[in-house]
Parts: sequence; C-alpha cells; structure tokens
Amino acid sequence: MVTTGSDTVTLMAYGWVSLTTDYGRSDGFSAALHGVIARIAPDVRVIDVTHDVRPGDVARGAAVLAQTASHLPESVHVAVVDPGVGTRRRGIALATPGGLLVGPDNGLLLPAAAALGGVTAAVELTNREWHGPQVSATFHGRDIFAPVAARLALGAPVFDAGDGFDAGALVKLPPPLVALGDGYVESEVLTVDRFGNVQLAASAEVLTGLGEHVTVGGMRAVRRATFGEAPHGALIVFGDSAGHAAVAINGGRAVVALGVEPGDVLRVATV
Amino acid sequence: MVTTGSDTVTLMAYGWVSLTTDYGRSDGFSAALHGVIARIAPDVRVIDVTHDVRPGDVARGAAVLAQTASHLPESVHVAVVDPGVGTRRRGIALATPGGLLVGPDNGLLLPAAAALGGVTAAVELTNREWHGPQVSATFHGRDIFAPVAARLALGAPVFDAGDGFDAGALVKLPPPLVALGDGYVESEVLTVDRFGNVQLAASAEVLTGLGEHVTVGGMRAVRRATFGEAPHGALIVFGDSAGHAAVAINGGRAVVALGVEPGDVLRVATV
Amino acid sequence: MVTTGSDTVTLMAYGWVSLTTDYGRSDGFSAALHGVIARIAPDVRVIDVTHDVRPGDVARGAAVLAQTASHLPESVHVAVVDPGVGTRRRGIALATPGGLLVGPDNGLLLPAAAALGGVTAAVELTNREWHGPQVSATFHGRDIFAPVAARLALGAPVFDAGDGFDAGALVKLPPPLVALGDGYVESEVLTVDRFGNVQLAASAEVLTGLGEHVTVGGMRAVRRATFGEAPHGALIVFGDSAGHAAVAINGGRAVVALGVEPGDVLRVATV
Repeated sequence: MVTTGSDTVTLMAYGWVSLTTDYGRSDGFSAALHGVIARIAPDVRVIDVTHDVRPGDVARGAAVLAQTASHLPESVHVAVVDPGVGTRRRGIALATPGGLLVGPDNGLLLPAAAALGGVTAAVELTNREWHGPQVSATFHGRDIFAPVAARLALGAPVFDAGDGFDAGALVKLPPPLVALGDGYVESEVLTVDRFGNVQLAASAEVLTGLGEHVTVGGMRAVRRATFGEAPHGALIVFGDSAGHAAVAINGGRAVVALGVEPGDVLRVATV
Repeated sequence: MVTTGSDTVTLMAYGWVSLTTDYGRSDGFSAALHGVIARIAPDVRVIDVTHDVRPGDVARGAAVLAQTASHLPESVHVAVVDPGVGTRRRGIALATPGGLLVGPDNGLLLPAAAALGGVTAAVELTNREWHGPQVSATFHGRDIFAPVAARLALGAPVFDAGDGFDAGALVKLPPPLVALGDGYVESEVLTVDRFGNVQLAASAEVLTGLGEHVTVGGMRAVRRATFGEAPHGALIVFGDSAGHAAVAINGGRAVVALGVEPGDVLRVATV
Repeated sequence: MVTTGSDTVTLMAYGWVSLTTDYGRSDGFSAALHGVIARIAPDVRVIDVTHDVRPGDVARGAAVLAQTASHLPESVHVAVVDPGVGTRRRGIALATPGGLLVGPDNGLLLPAAAALGGVTAAVELTNREWHGPQVSATFHGRDIFAPVAARLALGAPVFDAGDGFDAGALVKLPPPLVALGDGYVESEVLTVDRFGNVQLAASAEVLTGLGEHVTVGGMRAVRRATFGEAPHGALIVFGDSAGHAAVAINGGRAVVALGVEPGDVLRVATV
C-alpha cells in the first residue's frame, strides 16, 4: 500500500475482490457481480465469501465477512445486504490498512473494517462516472458497488469514487449485549454455523474467568479446548476458530439442545 | 469478433465460459464441468451463473441466463437443463453477435441468444472428435457440452462443432402470456426471486400505460420506482433491474401476499 | 510428474487445488480455504467440488470426490469431512499417479486415491512450519490442510509435509455390501443425486448378467441405456455416468419410488 503525505489514502491495485451478499445462488444476481467485475477488471480474481446470508440480515452478513476477511489476500471486499436499497442510505467505500470495503452505509462493513485495522477513510460513492450505464432502483450491487470495486481493484484512488466524509458519521449496528460478572458471562448469540455450533458475541478470553464445570442456558457443560476431549453428547464451551466463545456438542448440534437463535442471550456460569 | 466474407461465423477466442445448470451443488456434477474445461482450455475462466435451477425447469434456466448473459464478459455460455437427455433431441451451439451458446435444443438457449443480439448460426454438435473419450447416456454436460465449449473458447470455428442447420428449426419454448388492454395488463409470472419479488413476463414499459394506483391480483398496490418510496408493507409495482414489470413488498415477500408461482397469470389494472 | 530414483515421490507444481467439504456455503469457512490458498499460492486456481456434503458424512464426501477427481486437471485435492477434528486422528497427504490428496485420515481420501491410480506415498502432516500461524482446535481445513495443499501446489515435495508412514496403516471406510448371485445382485445404495437417481455401490458391469426385465426392491423395472428409451414413469436400471449400476425413473424421482437412502441394500433380480 502506498500512502501519500497528509492523507492515508490507498493508492494500489488489488488482485482480488471478495463478495458477501444475501443474493442466494438460484438467481443470476451473484453471477452478474462476477460479470461486471470481469468486464472492467478482467485480471482481478473473485472469492465468494457467501451469497447465502438470510435476506436482509445485516448483522449476519457483517459477522461472516468480519470473521473471513483477514484470511483472504488483500482485497476490495464488496458486501451487499441492503434492505434499504432505493432509500437515501449512502453507498460507501471504506479504506483500512488491510484492504478496501464497498457497500451500503448500514453497518454491514464496519466489523470487517475493524478486523482489517480500522477505517482510515470513508467516501460516499457520488462519482456517477464509475457506476453502470444505467443504475436500477433495486440492484445497486450490479450497478454501483461491483463497478466501483472493479475500478478500485485496478488501482484508482478511493477518493475518486466520490466525496470523503467523517467516519464518525457512519451508520453502526447496535453492539451485541455482552456482560461479565463474578463467575458468569451473559452474551448475545452472534451466529449459528452449519454444524449447529452456537457462537457468542463474547470473545474467547472471557472464558478464562470461569471454572471448568459451567452451566450454559441452565444446562451442564464443560470447558474444553477441542470436541474430542469431551464425552460423546456432552455440551462443551470453548474458544472457536474466530476467537469467540462458543458452545458445541461432541457429535451433536448445540443449537438444538439450547434452542437459541442469533440475538438471544445466553448465560454461561461457573457451577 | 472476426467475421468472414459470406458467413457470420465466429472466429475468436473467448476468455470466459459461463455455466447455467440444474445440477445443484451437492453432487460433483458442476465441478466435473469446471474440470473438463480446465483440462482442455486451462487459461479460460469460468463464471457460474447458477447450478440451482429446479431440476428440469427449462423455462427458469432460460430466464436466468437471458437476464444475466449481457452483464458477463463476452463468453461461451454453457446451459444444461436437459430432461430430454438420452432422447433424440439435438445438442447445439448457437452463434450470436454477443457470444456463443452451447446446450440442448429444447428452447433453453433462445432467450439468451435474443438478449445477445439474435442467432446468426445454429450448429448441431455432430463432430464426435470434440466430445469426451466416452459419452455417457445421461451426462452430456460433462461429455459433450463442456468439451465443445472449451474448444470454442480456444477459438475453434463454431462450424467445426458439427453440421449447420436452419435456425428456424430450433425448438422454442411457448411464449409466456402477456395481454395489454385499456388500463390493464395481464401477464404470466416469469420468475420469483430469492427476495420473494414476483417478476412478470411483461416488460417494464407496459406500466407507463397504467395509473399510479393499481390492483395486482385483486390487491391494492402503488406504482413506484423504488421500494423506499412506499410505506413499509405496501405492495409496489415497478420496473425491475432486468427491465421487466415486477411486484414487491417493501420489507416483505410479495410472492406470499400474492400466492402465485411461475406460469400463473397476474392482472395489473388501474383503479 | 517427476519421480526420483528409489521413491515414487511427487516433485511437481500443480496449477489447481480442488475442495470437497461439509462446510456449506452460508458461513465463511469455504471462503477462508480459498483465501489461505490465495495468500500462499496466488497463481493456483481452485475448483470447488462441493461444500454441501451432509455434516460429518465421510462416505458421501468420499464418493463425490472419487467420482469427480479424474475429470479435474491434475490437482492437489483437499477434502475435509472431519467429525474427528480435535481427536488424535492423523492429518495426511497422499501421493498418487494422478495427483495429491490432503485431509484427515478417516477413509475420506482413499476412494479418490484409488480412482487416481492408488496410493504411492502416505505422509502425516507433522511439519508445523507449513501450518497456519495459529492452529485452532476445530478448523484444520483453514489452519492445516489448506496451507499444506498450497505449498504442495507450489511444488514442495510431499515428504516435506511430515513423516511418511505405511499406507497399509491408513484408516479405511467399511466396504459397501455388494453380493452377486445367479440372476440377481444385492448392493448397498452409495448415493442419491439431485435428480433422485439412486446409485448403487455395484459397478455397471454386474448388470450384464441380468435379463432385460428385472425387479428392483420388489418393483418392476427395465434395463435401458438411457432414460429416453423407457416409457414415462417407468423404473429403469442402467449404468450411470460414473460407471455404477443405478436406478432412475424417466420423468420422476427413483428415490421416492424406492424409499431408500445411502447404506440401504437393494436387490436387482431377473424376472
């Protein structure tokens, strides 16, 4: 990354664009993003983070991208979970020390920006010359975000995408509830993964303050580093591969045993 | 594109192949297409339009490819929704001003061909030297269409794929019902997307003949350019990102409110 | 492939890595594998065989990869269906005449190894310098298997990945039941594909010993080369595109008619 004198402005070409959307794979929407990028920046390569965010679930899209971005090569990350498309919500690009982010200003990009080192510049995508020839009212991924990302990947300065603004004015998601007390932690459920593992918003470090035998949502559980160290069927509290506190069942689905979903609050307490 | 004297024959190499199938992603079928293409044309890049067409739903596959192809780089588009595999239906390649299409002759390719400028040549894939070493009875995507597409992407002339024939003999899907009257339009539902938006076969232009307040399937709706301009929960009629008339609910799923599926007919009428 | 004097050691760079996992596409897990590979070996290209193996279904993952690998370019095949992650099961790399395989030592890799010509070397992934900077207890795909595969794709010798061991000590899946008799075959169901076709563990060749009119699970069926040769709705026994005996219904879903799932045993008998 090259930075100019007074500003911390990204002036580099990126070999990679990542995509995180709620478009699904049954329609051609995600393919249209691939196509638009390929037409503008044919040598850039694209990694699909996921297109299976539940429609409109901004918090989920934010969590998946934040936990994946730092494992990708330095990229322009496009994220589109955008229930406000067609309203006056801003389209934005964010610069960070670890890459660029492009998408709607609805909180979706900020957890990934934090994972990539924090926002160093925020730009509203007001430069219409960078947008598609026709901008639909409902498909800004194809008509604005993908073409802007392709130009940034080619090395255009982020401030050429539009007007800079104060990063303090960015829309934020409400922070998830995490409360620590003497011998317990209460935390919102952040995500549930394909294996039924329940990831808490609390970080893995909070677990060090608890005993080896705990209750989770009132059920007995053990703290373990790996599934394999617990008996088959036992509820396990552990630090997961993204650095969060999480609950699993060795050989089962913790989400079924706990009956929770993202946004619910779980209490983990020393017995 | 290079065209020779009398014929409009494509004589160019393509950097891209697109794939549209009903193979799903759980089996290795779509990966086998990627593999066959990579073995023959390793520098060609592949864009998955979708592999999640409902099994055998030729009309759906045709609609998705037609609405996506023009946003992709100039490509050899492979499409396989092929309930007639193993019968005497032809395997074909079609040339258009905007790219090539390869797949079964069952109507699947024609809407995309129209979107790419119309058919300029039709070829039956009778050149067995271009097929895989063994052609199975049931997996022509892997054994015929992918290897033919890879050779076309490398720049082989489309007429080397087999015998040309009159494009008028191509199998066509029945055209969807669209009827315009004084203050109303009746149209088949073409697709329902992941967001529950209901896309009509009628083009967005037909809406200009209607008033601002309309009924859709007997329910009150408003005509709006974007979701955001309507109250939360309101039924909206609009021109969608593919140029079709469509129905949405701001913050909801129009398909649930309307209770329709592709092939059903909806009436939109000025109140 | 270059082989050195006494050992059959792979010493080549691979242009391709394939991925077969049970990670799904909703989380960022499969994207993290793409990212790790891109950071270490940016010019290597990745083919997703599938990420939709049912969680923990080792036999299914093994079957999909075995039936797909030989259609891919020569590759480093990463497969992760790994219910034993976090136990003492080995992480391994296998060399074959047709490519390399990387994953857990739980039987997942062996059917593909057989399809690629058989195991010529087995290595336990004990070289921690090749692993990620932090190895989580639960995500060895990202932290061990993907970085190892990327290094092998760059041309590092497989024995640099760790300690070689006797291939006879590899964990094997129990072989599926296949029994041939006079005028009948009994076989486990190996897979059911997206079209409801039921693939048997028995090879297509066993069908040659049967008559044209057979029963399958007690229901009347005909032996045919293709779906199109049978009446609509008829049950058909045929040799499928992967060389297995299989059962289909022309225009229907055989799995529904037969009421079977993988692991069940079907009897096909001459009438």
